[in-house]
Amino acid sequence: MNMKLGIVIFPSKKLQDFANSYRKRYDPHYALVPPHITLKSPFDAEEGDLKSLTSQLEEIAIKHQPFSFHLSKVKTFHPLNNVIYLKVDPNETLTALNEDLHEDSIIGGKPEYGFVPHLTIGQKLSNLEHDDVYNSLQMMDVDHEETVDRFHLLYQLENGSWTVYETFLLGKG
Amino acid sequence: MNMKLGIVIFPSKKLQDFANSYRKRYDPHYALVPPHITLKSPFDAEEGDLKSLTSQLEEIAIKHQPFSFHLSKVKTFHPLNNVIYLKVDPNETLTALNEDLHEDSIIGGKPEYGFVPHLTIGQKLSNLEHDDVYNSLQMMDVDHEETVDRFHLLYQLENGSWTVYETFLLGKG
Repeated sequence: MNMKLGIVIFPSKKLQDFANSYRKRYDPHYALVPPHITLKSPFDAEEGDLKSLTSQLEEIAIKHQPFSFHLSKVKTFHPLNNVIYLKVDPNETLTALNEDLHEDSIIGGKPEYGFVPHLTIGQKLSNLEHDDVYNSLQMMDVDHEETVDRFHLLYQLENGSWTVYETFLLGKG
Repeated sequence: MNMKLGIVIFPSKKLQDFANSYRKRYDPHYALVPPHITLKSPFDAEEGDLKSLTSQLEEIAIKHQPFSFHLSKVKTFHPLNNVIYLKVDPNETLTALNEDLHEDSIIGGKPEYGFVPHLTIGQKLSNLEHDDVYNSLQMMDVDHEETVDRFHLLYQLENGSWTVYETFLLGKG
């Protein structure tokens, strides 16, 4: 069976609750998946690929230790698209994880864009809404640091929502 | 920080899609969590409990091998409550997992009811709706078997939705 997979980090409950307070109003994906930092964008696979993929993800998880990341401000991908997000400051481990997850040996192919780690709080807004929301959120002070010790492999259901297939613990596989 | 935790099995994507086709109309929790078989109902814990809990769950997962379960019909918990569900036939591993997860040494206390493994497809219906939906679904032929090789520890966000904390692989921990 064909499946759509994705690989993400779920931040702390506190940060998810904070992000959801905006997503509820500004992100139509609010009910489909918890707030997350995408490590590998949705890609196609067969159910039969899961076994080799999960053993590859275990190896990648083992290679990296738990790390902290810092959120510094609200930004937007406009005019590329109307996504408003919390910017994750440049981070060696995140970059290395993203690179490892896009090795040729791993299903899913090359990323469409350069890796800009972020936590989406609004998307699919009209230009007018986007400008309005971005202008008001931009004034918000963001200065949050937390640690990450795991990432998750998800698959998408027919209704567009995502279910977790497996968790991978950094430093443990 | 206080958290609400739960332990569940997510069935196959195919079965989740099937359950969601009913949940979409009949279950107000549709957008809060994917279709699941509950092994341990929501319980309170502190964030600091997670470390010992996850190591206990690893030990429990290691003890049990992957297994199959069979769904045989549509049933209801009415008049206890108006939950309509797909009945999971009596299953040794499910019963043993449920018992292990309710040992005194594990946070969360004793279950309120006896364990009736099920996959909810409708709930919080009025009596009238319940009778209507149950009568029509009861006529549906259900005969589905599949294997389970993992369970998940979840935590609840402020908006009522659930995020996966960790996956535990049966026979592997």
